[in-house]
Amino acid sequence: MLQSSYPFYLANKAVFANQDLAVTNKYSNQVATHVAMASVTDIDNAITAADKAKHAMQAMPAYKRQAILQHCIERFKARYEELAYALCIEAGKPIKDARGEVTRLIDTFQIAAEEATRIYGEVMPMDISPRAEDYQGMWKRVPIGPCSFISPFNFPLNLAAHKIAPAIAAGCPFILKPASLTPVSALIVAEILAETDLPEGAFSILPCHRDGADLFTTDERLKLLSFTGSPDVGWALKAKAGKKPVVLELGGNAACIVDHDTDLEDAVQRIIFGAYYQSGQSCISVQRIIVHESLYDEAKARLTAAVNNLVMGDPLDESTFIGPMISEKEASRLHGWIEEARAGGANVLAGGQREGAMLEATLLENVKPDMSISSQEAFGPVAILSKFSDFDAALDEVNNSDFGLQAGIFTKDIYKAYKAWDVLEVGGVVIGDVPSWRVDHMPYGGVKDSGLGREGVRFAIEDMTELKLLVLRTPK
Amino acid sequence: MLQSSYPFYLANKAVFANQDLAVTNKYSNQVATHVAMASVTDIDNAITAADKAKHAMQAMPAYKRQAILQHCIERFKARYEELAYALCIEAGKPIKDARGEVTRLIDTFQIAAEEATRIYGEVMPMDISPRAEDYQGMWKRVPIGPCSFISPFNFPLNLAAHKIAPAIAAGCPFILKPASLTPVSALIVAEILAETDLPEGAFSILPCHRDGADLFTTDERLKLLSFTGSPDVGWALKAKAGKKPVVLELGGNAACIVDHDTDLEDAVQRIIFGAYYQSGQSCISVQRIIVHESLYDEAKARLTAAVNNLVMGDPLDESTFIGPMISEKEASRLHGWIEEARAGGANVLAGGQREGAMLEATLLENVKPDMSISSQEAFGPVAILSKFSDFDAALDEVNNSDFGLQAGIFTKDIYKAYKAWDVLEVGGVVIGDVPSWRVDHMPYGGVKDSGLGREGVRFAIEDMTELKLLVLRTPK
Amino acid sequence: MLQSSYPFYLANKAVFANQDLAVTNKYSNQVATHVAMASVTDIDNAITAADKAKHAMQAMPAYKRQAILQHCIERFKARYEELAYALCIEAGKPIKDARGEVTRLIDTFQIAAEEATRIYGEVMPMDISPRAEDYQGMWKRVPIGPCSFISPFNFPLNLAAHKIAPAIAAGCPFILKPASLTPVSALIVAEILAETDLPEGAFSILPCHRDGADLFTTDERLKLLSFTGSPDVGWALKAKAGKKPVVLELGGNAACIVDHDTDLEDAVQRIIFGAYYQSGQSCISVQRIIVHESLYDEAKARLTAAVNNLVMGDPLDESTFIGPMISEKEASRLHGWIEEARAGGANVLAGGQREGAMLEATLLENVKPDMSISSQEAFGPVAILSKFSDFDAALDEVNNSDFGLQAGIFTKDIYKAYKAWDVLEVGGVVIGDVPSWRVDHMPYGGVKDSGLGREGVRFAIEDMTELKLLVLRTPK
Amino acid sequence: MLQSSYPFYLANKAVFANQDLAVTNKYSNQVATHVAMASVTDIDNAITAADKAKHAMQAMPAYKRQAILQHCIERFKARYEELAYALCIEAGKPIKDARGEVTRLIDTFQIAAEEATRIYGEVMPMDISPRAEDYQGMWKRVPIGPCSFISPFNFPLNLAAHKIAPAIAAGCPFILKPASLTPVSALIVAEILAETDLPEGAFSILPCHRDGADLFTTDERLKLLSFTGSPDVGWALKAKAGKKPVVLELGGNAACIVDHDTDLEDAVQRIIFGAYYQSGQSCISVQRIIVHESLYDEAKARLTAAVNNLVMGDPLDESTFIGPMISEKEASRLHGWIEEARAGGANVLAGGQREGAMLEATLLENVKPDMSISSQEAFGPVAILSKFSDFDAALDEVNNSDFGLQAGIFTKDIYKAYKAWDVLEVGGVVIGDVPSWRVDHMPYGGVKDSGLGREGVRFAIEDMTELKLLVLRTPK
Repeated sequence: MLQSSYPFYLANKAVFANQDLAVTNKYSNQVATHVAMASVTDIDNAITAADKAKHAMQAMPAYKRQAILQHCIERFKARYEELAYALCIEAGKPIKDARGEVTRLIDTFQIAAEEATRIYGEVMPMDISPRAEDYQGMWKRVPIGPCSFISPFNFPLNLAAHKIAPAIAAGCPFILKPASLTPVSALIVAEILAETDLPEGAFSILPCHRDGADLFTTDERLKLLSFTGSPDVGWALKAKAGKKPVVLELGGNAACIVDHDTDLEDAVQRIIFGAYYQSGQSCISVQRIIVHESLYDEAKARLTAAVNNLVMGDPLDESTFIGPMISEKEASRLHGWIEEARAGGANVLAGGQREGAMLEATLLENVKPDMSISSQEAFGPVAILSKFSDFDAALDEVNNSDFGLQAGIFTKDIYKAYKAWDVLEVGGVVIGDVPSWRVDHMPYGGVKDSGLGREGVRFAIEDMTELKLLVLRTPK
Repeated sequence: MLQSSYPFYLANKAVFANQDLAVTNKYSNQVATHVAMASVTDIDNAITAADKAKHAMQAMPAYKRQAILQHCIERFKARYEELAYALCIEAGKPIKDARGEVTRLIDTFQIAAEEATRIYGEVMPMDISPRAEDYQGMWKRVPIGPCSFISPFNFPLNLAAHKIAPAIAAGCPFILKPASLTPVSALIVAEILAETDLPEGAFSILPCHRDGADLFTTDERLKLLSFTGSPDVGWALKAKAGKKPVVLELGGNAACIVDHDTDLEDAVQRIIFGAYYQSGQSCISVQRIIVHESLYDEAKARLTAAVNNLVMGDPLDESTFIGPMISEKEASRLHGWIEEARAGGANVLAGGQREGAMLEATLLENVKPDMSISSQEAFGPVAILSKFSDFDAALDEVNNSDFGLQAGIFTKDIYKAYKAWDVLEVGGVVIGDVPSWRVDHMPYGGVKDSGLGREGVRFAIEDMTELKLLVLRTPK
Repeated sequence: MLQSSYPFYLANKAVFANQDLAVTNKYSNQVATHVAMASVTDIDNAITAADKAKHAMQAMPAYKRQAILQHCIERFKARYEELAYALCIEAGKPIKDARGEVTRLIDTFQIAAEEATRIYGEVMPMDISPRAEDYQGMWKRVPIGPCSFISPFNFPLNLAAHKIAPAIAAGCPFILKPASLTPVSALIVAEILAETDLPEGAFSILPCHRDGADLFTTDERLKLLSFTGSPDVGWALKAKAGKKPVVLELGGNAACIVDHDTDLEDAVQRIIFGAYYQSGQSCISVQRIIVHESLYDEAKARLTAAVNNLVMGDPLDESTFIGPMISEKEASRLHGWIEEARAGGANVLAGGQREGAMLEATLLENVKPDMSISSQEAFGPVAILSKFSDFDAALDEVNNSDFGLQAGIFTKDIYKAYKAWDVLEVGGVVIGDVPSWRVDHMPYGGVKDSGLGREGVRFAIEDMTELKLLVLRTPK
Repeated sequence: MLQSSYPFYLANKAVFANQDLAVTNKYSNQVATHVAMASVTDIDNAITAADKAKHAMQAMPAYKRQAILQHCIERFKARYEELAYALCIEAGKPIKDARGEVTRLIDTFQIAAEEATRIYGEVMPMDISPRAEDYQGMWKRVPIGPCSFISPFNFPLNLAAHKIAPAIAAGCPFILKPASLTPVSALIVAEILAETDLPEGAFSILPCHRDGADLFTTDERLKLLSFTGSPDVGWALKAKAGKKPVVLELGGNAACIVDHDTDLEDAVQRIIFGAYYQSGQSCISVQRIIVHESLYDEAKARLTAAVNNLVMGDPLDESTFIGPMISEKEASRLHGWIEEARAGGANVLAGGQREGAMLEATLLENVKPDMSISSQEAFGPVAILSKFSDFDAALDEVNNSDFGLQAGIFTKDIYKAYKAWDVLEVGGVVIGDVPSWRVDHMPYGGVKDSGLGREGVRFAIEDMTELKLLVLRTPK
């Protein structure tokens, strides 16, 4: 059960300042709980506290940072079902997927706990030219300082965890703004963080209005901005970020190629998962399915049948595969794109209907590349089918996008696989599977409009630390 | 001898478009040569060509990238004195220092040639959780794409080389804007690059007006902006850089601590070099000398005598240590700061006079921390002396700055050395020497207002490449 | 309490074959329990089983290897006091030290659990010369195969753990021979390993007679021999090891320099610990204390007083610091060396008496370098004091040894510290502390007669794996 | 032209001690030159000198080690044809292959020159448990000391270079015994090394009788034995090597699988090269060709025709592909194996005749696995053809060998390629090519009876260096 209200956390402490943010059950549309909203002053105070905490965080030995993360893991295990329930309610996430996300939250903290003691530097020869003969050197990584985090609604726990856990591992204080639609699960994490020995100011988790959130971007005491969310918002923040570096994990219209030698039974199962899992509300959801002509008709028949079989309903129901989208507004936006495509000549093979935030799993063909449903990020339970005859042309089609996060290639041909690795303009290529696959330690992130930088705990820690050199001259 | 005029290089080719930029001998103030200026259209064409060249650059095997860099090294050696002479004339750099910079140019290209075949990726276990059991993965680094480079006047060769050489090693096309006051030596490099097999469009070196230069910052076909220059300009560019990441190598007011156990004879010699070498026009020139009270009087006497002994004159003269500053404007600006300090109660221990661009090597004491000569970047032949009694307080004084590039600590105490490494807010700490020390492979760059990112060939290559993941799923 | 008897473990299973090995309480000399001894046939069967298990071990995903190690950690925590008690009885280890060893056992397994998912390989450019243009490559680490382990009596748990835990992390089956004097605690570990999903044959822990143990060295199905113990035995095994590589962790006569700027109060406390901790039965116990002449008298007085204050008695007593040596034979051997030194002119400053296996903590001075007590490994509660005036000569004195494991240097001088790092012929130099310091992830091992190779989990894993290259040629 | 006699090099100096070793032209069997042989006393003196040189070598800055290697490269280029000619005469190596080896000699020294400045260590967190809170640590690699090298006749230059060049890069003095049949080219390298600034004693290159060579193995002042040659000799040396670690690069009976989807035209060309290049006298020569049944007849026809077309003759002739084997004894040994196979039912598809040391390129089928020509290392121009229907069974057949150096797999199937990487018991798997492929920086070496350790410059340097730890305790 959710509590009737939740505080925000400012400088490690719960603040029951107000109940200004009503959080709805995304399926029933009923208000499920209320959450305190942070004011601009609260955010400013949180930054002040983070800035004060930076030395204590930097000085904290590795084993303590590890122990704090391990405490969180213990507590996540203890509150596993509560966290899954919160996700199910506030995000409308089918309960099985919600449990999967809690499992990944634990994975992410586990990886971070292990990385906390593995932040290596380098001893490097300095005497590489005569004028450096009397010098030796080494460098280590030091925390970059207070970090600013903004996390999205689609994985309210794990995509917050991909910022929080590395920050603790690295020794950086942080302030985090969870998505306003789904603040609850991050606040439960905050409650658990508050049980630890983190120095005061080490963390603040602050639901807030977008305008109040400006300080997350502009305040110069913050030394890194890490944002996961929509491309438009992300790129706009970069321009306002002042002196701090920016990590952006944005979206895409991920493609999946199914070549002639594919085992269709396996591929269809994976594609259905990749395209419709949690209503396609994932940055690496399969949006474009590009099938070799020899398999096209069979693939179409199987995919259509499989989409029609997906169970839609209350996310709390164990049998539900398709729940609501995050909001009626989003469902309506995407339904409009389907209708636009249909009007432009596309074929709706399955689904296509909407009721409130409930959009059916939908499969289209004959979509033109410049239609919104193809060229924009769908971020919902919609995929489009097209056919290819030449593999290289299929790779070009994958690249024919403003985005470039991940791509999936069903092929058994090693040369095609390695060519895809070479020429696809994406952060990652998955062979024999959908682009939607991620494990939480791997380098993850996009090129082109899909973002900047890589997450995956070790890689996030790199962004949260700076190289610091020590040179020793030994006078002769 | 300089040629009577120099072309710019657009898409690997010399273009004798005009002779619009008069380059003066910085000592005599006579026009020494003329250089063609690129228009906005030229820059746009160069970017188009770079964008077209990106696939050819990415596909170029490592040994070819290495061979191109080795060709440059051979040619730099052959044209060694010509390059040194060009530096001496266009930058007013004493001829010995100019030769030293050509040597470092060669070092930088040598390091890059060696790194070109060492851009490693990683095979990483993917099976770290049950749901990843059937997966394996690896990542490599791929070139980020066309790069935009802006280089400064104080090391017209080597600070351009720190961008050019890693770009070639990494496989990135680039456009470079040399400083308008000192474009000649970079154009000689361009002439040499034009002799190589670099694919058309791989490089353009384009002197241009600052407004025309906007495309260097804003064009979205450019995937990285790497700027070396003044803090104000650098930070302003970051806000306009659009979607591309930005590397900034800016300046500082570097400090040097001289603790009680220092061998003063050695330290004075190093400090004189660190503070007045090429008239202090280095990002890591010693500006603030903080001496333990037990050595203060002796250090003051020795430093004053040494400054008074520095030979000022024509940089072409082998005996000259102090030549002109880059311009009368800059000399006047800095002389004004000296006068401001004198007026505010500071003691001028040596120097302090100016004639045109010739500013005497100057040593001050009793300077207040908020005076421009202390708090701003001097970037000229001026240093200020102060005293400390407590080492920790001296570290605080080093940190009492908007900047943080490098710091030098003369101490023999390992605990003080390591504490300095821990607490100083800088990119690098040099023990037993001045902050002004750099060898071209080491990670180099600042924190706070001194910049963003690290150069030093291997580290620059990291910024010029992106991680690209390959995952292989093996269905059971 | 100990059980009345313990089985050995052959191919993961307890075998109550006999009760042939009586294990005594090292303090009371009473038989404490009986342990089954493995025959040559048992050992041969264990090797056969390990060889059969190698493919299953290699194929085990990383998360399972991690989970097995985590299970052990949970169980070690649950049986913490039992393990400490077993150590106390079978090794005569003071109970506080015994608990410390169990804590380190847990550390070692924890580090290994974390490393199990971090066995990285490398993607390397192959196209470094024209003839390699069409090639790319990568390598990974694969388990070396069945390993042979022999562990010593002085840390019956943790020095076995330094072999067992990396083997599981790396995916290698193993057979382990614990020291015959102290087999019990390793058998408790075996009991815990038997609870896991390790494939049959993955481990055998086999107390056995030395002659039966030949197969541990000679059998060619075993792909690595890792031995921790005495130098004589270790080097003899290397010659008989056939085709397998050999890791040897042997002993030494570790030295500690106390320079003139040392805080004696701190140093004396550390040296007493380093020299007499668990009766000096550690490979890196302080044996030679080399003090600057300016501090010699004071150091002598303080050390003598401190040694005289050490409490000797029953290791089960919480206040005991000095318990028995491992056997009367060993105590007698070492007492003989003391007497030999005394006869040769050495001064016994403290201790020097023996009763059975109880040898007093002993401090000597005026020992000649070629006396056994100086040149051989004492491996007991004895240290010798000498004086130096020149630091470089003190470094030479440290090097004047057949051994080279670790050295400790109390100095604050960074140049002396780094010189020690350069010139001492040892595996590790500890500044500001005794040579006796070790944390379980650091690279640990000796040069000269002190051994071959490095332990410390990540480094042990390197020895237990082999590089395996994959090259892909892409025909044009 | 060869000189009429060559000295050996002892402690960097040419010693014209005698002319005891007559070196023949392997094609004409005429004596081509005489070489001085080192006595046991000479070898002992060389070791003494190497031991004395170890500190000077360790102290030599990286840029000097690099410069020495670069000098060698310049001189190899200048004496390119002379080196190729020497190889051609003394090894009977076809002149084109001889030139190829000189090119690789240069590659190997080039890689080593670049690695000389890249011997990195690590800064590692020590504070991973409470008891380590006040500690920090780092390690570097230091030279292991004087090395003992024994190199073979088949690549008299490049396989010596794989020991010499890394030793110089790492800072190790060395003594090298070239093969008695082919000492000349290594002595030319020695002549070039003698021109450099290497400290006296840094190198000795000593042709000698096998019994005199015992010191190479047994002398304890030598800290590493690195041997390339035949398995029997190699493994025997390991047992006599005393305390030093041993690297063994031995031979094998390398296999190559040709799967059903192979482009035969390409594969046949590569296999002919891989099997008969320099008369198959390479450790990774193709000995076993395992072809999918669907391609078998076609592959047999093409291979037979291609073998019959190979030109045999004087290695000095530019058109010669097959020259003599190293000796009549070796040719006779291998011819005997052919005859044994023929007698046992094998089919000689091409070749099979011998005249003196000239053995025809020979192709067999219907060979039984236990015949010498299959199970032993042929080390000559002989390959055997067999067929498979099931890919997994073909992998088993590759593994059905005492050896395991490299394997080649012609397949386009990514799952077969990765399975081969997983299950083949070899040091390297080459996809789309023969096992005979090597580039000089890659990790190279075998498992099972094929050896111990990896060469490839960076990997050889790892064996020639030891980790040396520095720990700094900071008392509270």
